[in-house]
Amino acid sequence: MAKVIGILGLGLIGGSLGLDLVRLGYTVVGVSQRIQTCAIACERGAVTVAGTHWALLKAADIVFNCLPMDKVHGSMERLVTLLRPGTVVTDVASVKMPFIESATAIWPWFVGGHPMAGTAHQGITAALPHLFRERPYVLTPIPATNPDSLAQVQHLITALEAQLYTTDPASHDQAVALISHAPVFISAALLLTTQSAPPGIQHLAQQLASSGFADTTRVGGGNPELGLNMALYNRAALLEQLGSYQYVIEKLRENIAQGDGQALETLLKQSQQLRQDYVT
Amino acid sequence: MAKVIGILGLGLIGGSLGLDLVRLGYTVVGVSQRIQTCAIACERGAVTVAGTHWALLKAADIVFNCLPMDKVHGSMERLVTLLRPGTVVTDVASVKMPFIESATAIWPWFVGGHPMAGTAHQGITAALPHLFRERPYVLTPIPATNPDSLAQVQHLITALEAQLYTTDPASHDQAVALISHAPVFISAALLLTTQSAPPGIQHLAQQLASSGFADTTRVGGGNPELGLNMALYNRAALLEQLGSYQYVIEKLRENIAQGDGQALETLLKQSQQLRQDYVT
Repeated sequence: MAKVIGILGLGLIGGSLGLDLVRLGYTVVGVSQRIQTCAIACERGAVTVAGTHWALLKAADIVFNCLPMDKVHGSMERLVTLLRPGTVVTDVASVKMPFIESATAIWPWFVGGHPMAGTAHQGITAALPHLFRERPYVLTPIPATNPDSLAQVQHLITALEAQLYTTDPASHDQAVALISHAPVFISAALLLTTQSAPPGIQHLAQQLASSGFADTTRVGGGNPELGLNMALYNRAALLEQLGSYQYVIEKLRENIAQGDGQALETLLKQSQQLRQDYVT
Repeated sequence: MAKVIGILGLGLIGGSLGLDLVRLGYTVVGVSQRIQTCAIACERGAVTVAGTHWALLKAADIVFNCLPMDKVHGSMERLVTLLRPGTVVTDVASVKMPFIESATAIWPWFVGGHPMAGTAHQGITAALPHLFRERPYVLTPIPATNPDSLAQVQHLITALEAQLYTTDPASHDQAVALISHAPVFISAALLLTTQSAPPGIQHLAQQLASSGFADTTRVGGGNPELGLNMALYNRAALLEQLGSYQYVIEKLRENIAQGDGQALETLLKQSQQLRQDYVT
């Protein structure tokens, strides 16, 4: 099995992977475009060695491509010119469909992955040990995926004590549109709606807002770059979810307008019940 | 000032008020329709005396009507036949417009109130000391409100260490529609939308859902009775907010469909900024 692990991109995810893999006894080679980030990663024990030259990754048996979603595709073309044939590459992007086919076509040892863990913070200074423990880590093989490469990534994910899920890229993208990407826009829309209220009402509402409003708006008030990438890269699945959502909101609005208490009670009881299937 | 406080309805709010007022040295007379609830309130020290007979409230200088929103109006007509003239009555319903005028017309010493505190639990067993401390408590006087009655309620709210706000009933109802009632339906709609996905996607989404989905759906998966009362009693303000919300969601959906990254980035940055005005 792999002994040397490469990490391209030493942010929250890359840095956290490094902390765990160093602890597990692997040699970890980190690459960041900023030398300062490399220095912090070394100090924190998130890498064995680190530098700004991608050629360092040539030593790796497995490379985690932890660049942001909008950099994954472009970086693959450069990365594969530097690696030894047979080196496994896996990414951590939260949308899988746009890259899987092309990445596998240019590098037969590519395995799509999505660790579903994070914090509200970013960067190497936010990296945490055990970030992936008991969190879902999804792999999205396609028919062209090399089975041995897949097995090597699975082995590492198990070592991270993450919950391993394996599914096709399209199902992954639809599921995350439902539970992660649509909620960002549903929540952001609530924040944007506050601007429609008269200034006096906005001011009063700001004073009275409590934990319910804070929770409902948390993901919509998060990092704009993440939301933008969800919208641009998972567009089809997101549009489908938002279309279904608009239909439901309109139905609720009609029931409220008609004062149809029975229909509303049924729907609110359904909501309460449904949540138990998603939140344990 | 008032020495004897009556509490009609010994649930989470009534029971918590009782715990604090007993501690502050008031004589607290509690009334519940269930004798078992009265017994628990006595045991927990949430009342000085309690019983099922409303006539007990005759001893009170101030009565907190803590019945659920759909019982407030009907209960006022019965309550005023039992009280001494001059007894202050205040309610705790989360919508003020429907009751204020009529309640003040039948009882000139009525003061509308809304303590904005709660937990996920209900009933006398969920009552907590200091529930109102540093939480907003809104009073909604109208021109016909008796100034001395208002001052007496303000005095008690200050003793509870709550944050006192005073506004007109219409502004209150619009503000809570924005930050509390609309979020319930926006959040419930997200839960209901999950049903539109194919069963396999629903199953995968249930396994992958994490804190973001949990937070966004918390208020929508809450007590259906509360949501129903919001829809029925704060209908006009809620419909206005949901109408504005539908407009915003449609604008976001169009920007996503057109792949307009610049417009989306602007809106997501606005959301992030707006949240800071509401959540500190």
